[in-house]
Amino acid sequence: MKKSFLFLLSCISLSAGAQNLVQYVKPIIGTQRMGHVYPGATVPYGMVQLSPETDTPSYELNGRYNPDVYKYCAGYQYDDKTIVGFSHTHFSGTGHSDLGDFLIMPSVGTLKLNPGTADKPGSGYRSAFSHANEVSEANYYKVKLDDPNILAEMTTTPRVGFHQYTFPKSDQAHIILDLMAGIYNYPDKNLWTYVRMINDSTIAGYRLTNGWARTRTLYFAMTFNKKFLQMGYRKYDKREVYGGFWGQFARVKNFPELAGRQLRLFFDFKTEANEKIKIKFALSPVSMDGAIANMKAELPGWDFEKVKADGQAAWEKELHKIVIKSDSKDEMVDFYTSMYHAMINPTIYMDVDGSYRGLDQNNHKADGFTNYTTFSLWDTHRALHPLFNIIDPKRNADMVRSMLAHYDQSPEHMLPVWSNSANENWCMSGYHSVSVIADAIVKGNADGIDANHALEACVATARHRDYAGIGYYMDMGYIPDERNGNSVSSTQEYAYDDWCIAQLAKKLGKNDIYEEFYKRSQNYKNVFDPVSGFMHPKLADGTFCKKFDPFTTLGMGFIEGNAWNYTLYVPHDPASLIKLMGGNKHFITYVDSLFSYDLPDKYFAETEDITRDGIIGNYVHGNEPSHHVAYLYDWTDKPWKAQEKIRMILKRMYKPTPDGLGGNDDTGQMSAWYIFSTLGFYPVAPGSDQYAIGSPAINNAVINLQNGKIFTVDVKNQSDKNVFIQKITLNGKVLTTPFLTHADIMNGGSITFEMGAKHK
Amino acid sequence: MKKSFLFLLSCISLSAGAQNLVQYVKPIIGTQRMGHVYPGATVPYGMVQLSPETDTPSYELNGRYNPDVYKYCAGYQYDDKTIVGFSHTHFSGTGHSDLGDFLIMPSVGTLKLNPGTADKPGSGYRSAFSHANEVSEANYYKVKLDDPNILAEMTTTPRVGFHQYTFPKSDQAHIILDLMAGIYNYPDKNLWTYVRMINDSTIAGYRLTNGWARTRTLYFAMTFNKKFLQMGYRKYDKREVYGGFWGQFARVKNFPELAGRQLRLFFDFKTEANEKIKIKFALSPVSMDGAIANMKAELPGWDFEKVKADGQAAWEKELHKIVIKSDSKDEMVDFYTSMYHAMINPTIYMDVDGSYRGLDQNNHKADGFTNYTTFSLWDTHRALHPLFNIIDPKRNADMVRSMLAHYDQSPEHMLPVWSNSANENWCMSGYHSVSVIADAIVKGNADGIDANHALEACVATARHRDYAGIGYYMDMGYIPDERNGNSVSSTQEYAYDDWCIAQLAKKLGKNDIYEEFYKRSQNYKNVFDPVSGFMHPKLADGTFCKKFDPFTTLGMGFIEGNAWNYTLYVPHDPASLIKLMGGNKHFITYVDSLFSYDLPDKYFAETEDITRDGIIGNYVHGNEPSHHVAYLYDWTDKPWKAQEKIRMILKRMYKPTPDGLGGNDDTGQMSAWYIFSTLGFYPVAPGSDQYAIGSPAINNAVINLQNGKIFTVDVKNQSDKNVFIQKITLNGKVLTTPFLTHADIMNGGSITFEMGAKHK
Repeated sequence: MKKSFLFLLSCISLSAGAQNLVQYVKPIIGTQRMGHVYPGATVPYGMVQLSPETDTPSYELNGRYNPDVYKYCAGYQYDDKTIVGFSHTHFSGTGHSDLGDFLIMPSVGTLKLNPGTADKPGSGYRSAFSHANEVSEANYYKVKLDDPNILAEMTTTPRVGFHQYTFPKSDQAHIILDLMAGIYNYPDKNLWTYVRMINDSTIAGYRLTNGWARTRTLYFAMTFNKKFLQMGYRKYDKREVYGGFWGQFARVKNFPELAGRQLRLFFDFKTEANEKIKIKFALSPVSMDGAIANMKAELPGWDFEKVKADGQAAWEKELHKIVIKSDSKDEMVDFYTSMYHAMINPTIYMDVDGSYRGLDQNNHKADGFTNYTTFSLWDTHRALHPLFNIIDPKRNADMVRSMLAHYDQSPEHMLPVWSNSANENWCMSGYHSVSVIADAIVKGNADGIDANHALEACVATARHRDYAGIGYYMDMGYIPDERNGNSVSSTQEYAYDDWCIAQLAKKLGKNDIYEEFYKRSQNYKNVFDPVSGFMHPKLADGTFCKKFDPFTTLGMGFIEGNAWNYTLYVPHDPASLIKLMGGNKHFITYVDSLFSYDLPDKYFAETEDITRDGIIGNYVHGNEPSHHVAYLYDWTDKPWKAQEKIRMILKRMYKPTPDGLGGNDDTGQMSAWYIFSTLGFYPVAPGSDQYAIGSPAINNAVINLQNGKIFTVDVKNQSDKNVFIQKITLNGKVLTTPFLTHADIMNGGSITFEMGAKHK
Repeated sequence: MKKSFLFLLSCISLSAGAQNLVQYVKPIIGTQRMGHVYPGATVPYGMVQLSPETDTPSYELNGRYNPDVYKYCAGYQYDDKTIVGFSHTHFSGTGHSDLGDFLIMPSVGTLKLNPGTADKPGSGYRSAFSHANEVSEANYYKVKLDDPNILAEMTTTPRVGFHQYTFPKSDQAHIILDLMAGIYNYPDKNLWTYVRMINDSTIAGYRLTNGWARTRTLYFAMTFNKKFLQMGYRKYDKREVYGGFWGQFARVKNFPELAGRQLRLFFDFKTEANEKIKIKFALSPVSMDGAIANMKAELPGWDFEKVKADGQAAWEKELHKIVIKSDSKDEMVDFYTSMYHAMINPTIYMDVDGSYRGLDQNNHKADGFTNYTTFSLWDTHRALHPLFNIIDPKRNADMVRSMLAHYDQSPEHMLPVWSNSANENWCMSGYHSVSVIADAIVKGNADGIDANHALEACVATARHRDYAGIGYYMDMGYIPDERNGNSVSSTQEYAYDDWCIAQLAKKLGKNDIYEEFYKRSQNYKNVFDPVSGFMHPKLADGTFCKKFDPFTTLGMGFIEGNAWNYTLYVPHDPASLIKLMGGNKHFITYVDSLFSYDLPDKYFAETEDITRDGIIGNYVHGNEPSHHVAYLYDWTDKPWKAQEKIRMILKRMYKPTPDGLGGNDDTGQMSAWYIFSTLGFYPVAPGSDQYAIGSPAINNAVINLQNGKIFTVDVKNQSDKNVFIQKITLNGKVLTTPFLTHADIMNGGSITFEMGAKHK
């Protein structure tokens, strides 16, 4: 009762004139170059991400991999001049592509079922557009399609996309449903497509794809606000299947059942001038009936404005979890767009009744939790899940339960590495699920989690000898460079992950597991070469590789980071690392050099996932392994250097412009870094309860905690120049070390920073 | 309580020494030439039909249709010398092919994953065998595989196949699971195959196929009685997917998850001499979890002999529904093999928990009934379902409920025509579901059927203007020959079906529907040409086609029957037909000529689905449209001619030998004809309560009715020569017309025939 009352209160307070924060959300930020985010409509953690595609390049070009595919991970590139259509599923900020399901495009006049090419206007159904006629807000996207002269608008509920197309007067108005279109558009991606007409304005269907997610079935239901005159189709595969095949039927249109590998459908209408054709398009991971039920439950009517407003209110509620004050509108935009990007993933992956497709390809029912997918854990364990542990611990606990369900269903008996729609994509290194799990439980956020089962899952994953060099790592204390391309970085990442498991075991009083994994957590020392001064690839015979280049990321035992960066990747034990590297002074010089030594151009080309701006000296913010690095100064006698560097990174890597992200947003990790760093602290080692203090970049922030308490960050005298902390008081007491604990925040209270232009 | 007690009693009485009827079942009958039955193991109406494939020819040969495909509808041809393997799903007696799912083959020595060809021994995993080493019984099949020197045995439960392979001593013993194999082996039939290892002796998976059933997914679980040393695979499709792809894994075998379009798996063992490797292989139409649950529920242990015995006891129980006495063992074999073939289809299509895949491709739960598929209704409405209405009315009511569920889920809003595993195959003409439904309800067998909903379904189906000329038929009273290849036979079949709907409407007191459909039932008269004296193709302008050949089945407006045969197809109104054809005398001459006028050879080649022996004169027993014809003499003044002809057909068309079936068994219709005719009566017009009397060919039959009553057929002085009825008494009263009603049977009692060598 109390909870609902509080919830009610918060709703009322929001609707009764609370600050409008949604206005600062600009989904267009990061849509240019490498941000890989999309400008379309979604609600927080929504299963539907309804957004325009400006291109979906074929995976193959002349029989080879087409490098353009990478640009279109989110389907949209700001520099493009045409829109192909609007599809219902998109990754946000990933470095790999998939999805792009069920592309819809309106058109008028002679029907063109081919998308055509951007360089030939009118060659297909794609249309020119301009950013002047485009509006991109949280849960609302609008664009004028110039070629058919149609205004396209879209909004969503968690499981339903809502399209509204304002047509000119036409006897030949069409809605195209391109069931061949997709992102990661491999020629054989579509395995099977099935469509069934339910009545004269509703269809349902599904598509089975073998994309990045290798066995993925997505079901849909699609309803128009008026009857279509005709549903037609064309097939693009040699074998004729349903629809017209059976001599028994006299009809040439409106086949109520269609299937095949490659199909495009169209729906014909007559429209009056300014007539709105509306479409509700529901998804389900489980069944067509599930999609229909989702539509009925979430979007029973046809009030576009109400659905848009409801979704924006949902965003408003999420954004209000941290209310900041800043003199700069740009900062407000950067902050709340980061909040927006941080609360898109992981995505809900179940029907309204709790049914979802499991990793074992069986259907399951989520018992008392919301099931999520799209876990890009190599990225998000660092700051995104720790952020959830502060602002949305209940949801984070559900995410952990989703990860444990994944483990229970896993043919490998492993926790997720990169989970995507009932598939394990095995993308990137480490077993960082254990970090997310340990962080949640260590921070007391174990709501509904079976902690012992969680520990069992962590241990089983970490002992999977067959996976990515773990066997060698267990036997030898490091991965020999002959055995694995990421021998050094994986050794380091396992060491950190093992430390997380040890923390979890300690919390649960499992001393033998604590001992085992604490010991493993020290393995990073085995790949440090005191001669080169770097983490250094080591051979099976125990000697370090002679060929070595600390700048390169290729073929040197690291992934998405060179030795210079990765050497600092010991988030769980900075003090020992500093000792290992020669002590305080040498360590500071080393970190300084990372920011000041410009990476020669020849190395840049091989640095993945980032733009040229995504690099500062040799510090690669566009990739994640260095996200904690600036905070390491807190373990030296010069924490002011952290303050300086963090403000520099905030300024240079985040801008309120389409090209404003310095690299892939990585399903929110880059944004979570921004949020923490702007607030003035950062979780260097998730799995501990400690935050390292940086340099707050706002004047005031109120964190509205789920437990009803409030934690306030007050920053005095802060400015672009006044980046150095003069004094910190926590609930009135002076803080003498640059660290904060989770309890300090969750108990409520206030922290006050006094800032100045000179470091102390 | 009472029911279970009776059931218990009947079990006891069977096991305590009732007559062994299973001994007379010879599944091998009909496996040579055109019978299209299979010799393998199944329980009554079982979802699993575990049987050897002697070949599975590719659908295409040199880019064209391979006519050999037709021979292998059931996967087995008696003349073949090799066995490819044992798969779990087979049609029984159909004239079209599909299924053949999940082929298993044991082997020893060097692993060969290709089946090889029959003409090159040792070219693959297939093995030579001989009938001398083959045993085929109800629910038991055994064969010695000569090449690997392995004894293969199999038995089943409704949803689980049980394999037992007796190996020689070998360090290289293998079980191959060929996931590419299938019947109706179109090159692109396999759309996707998924396999997951559950533990070191169990896997689960599914296959999505686009075969005759166009969108069909079948799930499985497979458990060995011992751990395999290794599970390996080979892929036969250009794109590499699961298994070994992911560089993270060091392993080269035992990938716990595999998928692709074309895969073959193998499991390696070491065996001692005479060691038995046993496999339980469960199916589910719904999910892998469903298959696992089916296995647990039906076959928890490993006792092969017990499973075999239980399945044979289930057959014994079904066979005991009619207990005959005959002097001839051949007759006993023919009768009980017919009973066996009659009780294979329709097949159960749901998990033990009632879950099944519906025609709408959603999963459903059967609420209070068993869901069935494999409805070959053009065939089986004639005698098979009427037989069920006597010996198993509860099951038949469930079949009707399955048909209504199909209607409810049908995108076309139609009752089934040929339903196959959640697909509508649209095979053959008419909408004969209505006959089965009307027959059940008219005969008072509406247990659990919503009769009004059933009538609605019948009417909606019969008014589907778009389907197979119905619109023309409704508007013009016949189908113009320009519009449809079966214009005449479809007009006749619709007329009969409409009469069934009228009977159902009458029973339910829906007079307007009765009137509408009774009127339609007279439409057969519109295609009778008094000039030619035949049912005759008619053009849209109302004139009869000038080009006409009453012997041909090609291009003359008929399907699987020429005009000579089809003219007699007015099962619901023989008296009017006789009048139409010129009266009693002319009619008798016409029917006589059908049996005496030998069809010229040139026409035989075009007569589908039958062997040369399947024809008597011009009477084609191997196809169904004439199945009632011999009984039509009952409507003339010479019913003795029926008696003579029926005995001739029984003798010539059914033999206790591998080539003993004169045509496709057609999922039991041919066998049901045999059963009725042997008992001495036949349902000429299902939908009426009337049986026409023929000539009983046994000495005594006891029909054990589900209502606890018994109906006895006593035949005195019957022999191959004494085929003519001298006198019939029903419950002691002399029967003066050659007709019996359904109530006469279901009320219990006895009918006595006195036979003689001369007709009366």
